[in-house]
Amino acid sequence: MDMSTKPLIPVVALSEVFDLSTVFADEGRSGVQILRPDQIDDPASIEFALAWRPADDAFDSFPNIRLVSSIAAGVDSIIACPSLPETAVVSRIRDEAQAQMMAGFAAWNVVWHHRRIGDFVKNQATRTWERSFRPALPGQVTVGVLGFGLMGRMCARAIAAMGYRVLAARRSTAATEDEPGVKVISGATALAEVAAQAQILVNVLPLTEETRDFLNHDFFAQMPEGASLVQIGRGEHLVEADFLEALDQGRIASATVDVFRQEPLPPDHPFWARPEILITPHKASDSTRDEILRQLAENCIAISEGRMPPGAVDLSAGY
Amino acid sequence: MDMSTKPLIPVVALSEVFDLSTVFADEGRSGVQILRPDQIDDPASIEFALAWRPADDAFDSFPNIRLVSSIAAGVDSIIACPSLPETAVVSRIRDEAQAQMMAGFAAWNVVWHHRRIGDFVKNQATRTWERSFRPALPGQVTVGVLGFGLMGRMCARAIAAMGYRVLAARRSTAATEDEPGVKVISGATALAEVAAQAQILVNVLPLTEETRDFLNHDFFAQMPEGASLVQIGRGEHLVEADFLEALDQGRIASATVDVFRQEPLPPDHPFWARPEILITPHKASDSTRDEILRQLAENCIAISEGRMPPGAVDLSAGY
Ligand SMILES: NC(=O)c1ccc[n+]([C@@H]2O[C@H](COP(=O)([O-])OP(=O)(O)OC[C@H]3O[C@@H](n4cnc5c(N)ncnc54)[C@H](OP(=O)(O)O)[C@@H]3O)[C@@H](O)[C@H]2O)c1
Ligand SMILES: NC(=O)c1ccc[n+]([C@@H]2O[C@H](COP(=O)([O-])OP(=O)(O)OC[C@H]3O[C@@H](n4cnc5c(N)ncnc54)[C@H](OP(=O)(O)O)[C@@H]3O)[C@@H](O)[C@H]2O)c1
Repeated sequence: MDMSTKPLIPVVALSEVFDLSTVFADEGRSGVQILRPDQIDDPASIEFALAWRPADDAFDSFPNIRLVSSIAAGVDSIIACPSLPETAVVSRIRDEAQAQMMAGFAAWNVVWHHRRIGDFVKNQATRTWERSFRPALPGQVTVGVLGFGLMGRMCARAIAAMGYRVLAARRSTAATEDEPGVKVISGATALAEVAAQAQILVNVLPLTEETRDFLNHDFFAQMPEGASLVQIGRGEHLVEADFLEALDQGRIASATVDVFRQEPLPPDHPFWARPEILITPHKASDSTRDEILRQLAENCIAISEGRMPPGAVDLSAGY
Repeated sequence: MDMSTKPLIPVVALSEVFDLSTVFADEGRSGVQILRPDQIDDPASIEFALAWRPADDAFDSFPNIRLVSSIAAGVDSIIACPSLPETAVVSRIRDEAQAQMMAGFAAWNVVWHHRRIGDFVKNQATRTWERSFRPALPGQVTVGVLGFGLMGRMCARAIAAMGYRVLAARRSTAATEDEPGVKVISGATALAEVAAQAQILVNVLPLTEETRDFLNHDFFAQMPEGASLVQIGRGEHLVEADFLEALDQGRIASATVDVFRQEPLPPDHPFWARPEILITPHKASDSTRDEILRQLAENCIAISEGRMPPGAVDLSAGY
């Protein structure tokens, strides 16, 4: 389709952390044009927003917003925004290729902790040939995956393909399509049930009212002694003081943390210096600029045509 | 089956590097008894050997050996032994759980190099939040797997499950059972064809006359500029000087090396200090003691009953 003959759809960029109008500038190839608020003459004419951690009052000047699209899979910072118009549809990016990246990253971390590969990295620095640790066979290791949506399902699949026993948790008790090698546990106690059995626990939940601060003292107390945590959901899932305590007690033996309450993680943060933690700078997975713009345009067109956009989220569930 | 009522099958342990009689002592549970040569009164009565890097003259005192079982998947050090009786059957361990371990390790290394996760490890030491590197999507990365036997197939499967494009090389042009997401290339030029296309190359070949020293200058020259190598086959596959040259030239950007010409890798070896190399101490995968003994007993019984043992290798092919 030759977009050049059509007028570009104007979309306001609302973010306190990035200049989305620059990051997502594509000379109109996608059919949308991302504008900073100060580039817009008639805010009342704007129906679409692209957002990531918008300011509390971000939407106040845009009374006619019908769609707010996240630049990512998560919509928590949009739903939490006090000025979000009640009637607006909120949409997310649903990118299979991103989920594939997520899966590779999750699977990588499972092996990193199970096989203690960090020890090899350390031993190399001292030219030490040390091979006495004998990891359990993958079939004897239970890996829990919290979340079984776009990301969680692919993570579970990649981990199962390495022979691990995978237990996945989801919220809804609706029938779940089978995934070979993965047992799915549903409902209100699913998180606790999976946590109680998992030697390695991967968190890919969305941030909602229910999941905020759920990785806390009581939760860690249910986990098997010496488990590993792969935290690739959202920073606000994790109660940092409780987590450090669980590490000190050896309840959690090792962890990867990719998402933080404050990003970039400040240089004086205690996580940096913990030998049990691998820190990755929110790089578990990203969507690509072109895919985000493609889905944004698709969602805008759906709204214009009176259809529910494919990326729409359930505002009552919060994800 | 209660083995205690049957006499144990005596098996001589032949290794210059390990005392296999101690490593594989299981009080007869498996039905075999592993004996050091000096524990054997009548060498002519011994029909079975368990071997790993046997001395050149190891078999001279045991004229009636009918089966030599490796403790591992590889049989190269047995086939190369000058005193190996011409009529002996040589067998290997074929352990699916080990192949699963191998697959996890191979897949882990693919992600390590593709996503440059080593940079995160380094950046953590300086509390640096650096996220500018944007890896290609897995579907745009070609991973080559050299070898498509027990290990290679499982490696290819786990890597494909992460969404990578996988090309695998095997020797025989016999029909290959399909593996979803994996393209298999066969025949004399298979290794070169795969190498020419792979951004990440995993070597899981056996060591044979054909494959000794095959990872050399000419081979590296066929690889794409800046490729990564995951060397988990055998140390003798790799011409070390040529490899260091390829690293210096940037032809190979990064590598994992698990197997070496000399193991343990000597402290003064140049590999230790190369930042591009991750060294792992021959830990890609192991079989378990119990499984090795179970298969050894099975192979001995097959020979006694005049059947070809399930672990027998093709001596003319050398693997
Ligand atoms: N670190 C990174 O780079 C990165 C990148 C992408 C995404 N993420 C995180 O991953 C999250 C998930 O993404 P997604 O695309 O997989 O979302 P999704 O498709 O909406 O799936 C969410 C899953 O979580 C389950 N869930 C939600 N609340 C739950 C609860 N209280 N108890 C149990 N299960 C619950 C859902 O259950 P149902 O199936 O029953 O609805 C669903 O299976 C994102 O929100 C974001 O936080 C992080
Ligand atoms: N690092 C470790 O810890 C570790 C652990 C286990 C094994 N290994 C290594 O992995 C090797 C493979 O084990 P495996 O159980 O997979 O052996 P396998 O089942 O015998 O498979 C060997 C594969 O290599 C292919 N091949 C052999 N020579 C070739 C050549 N010249 N050109 C192209 N392909 C060739 C074979 O082709 P065909 O299919 O046509 O026969 C077969 O697909 C072992 O010998 C050992 O060296 C290392």
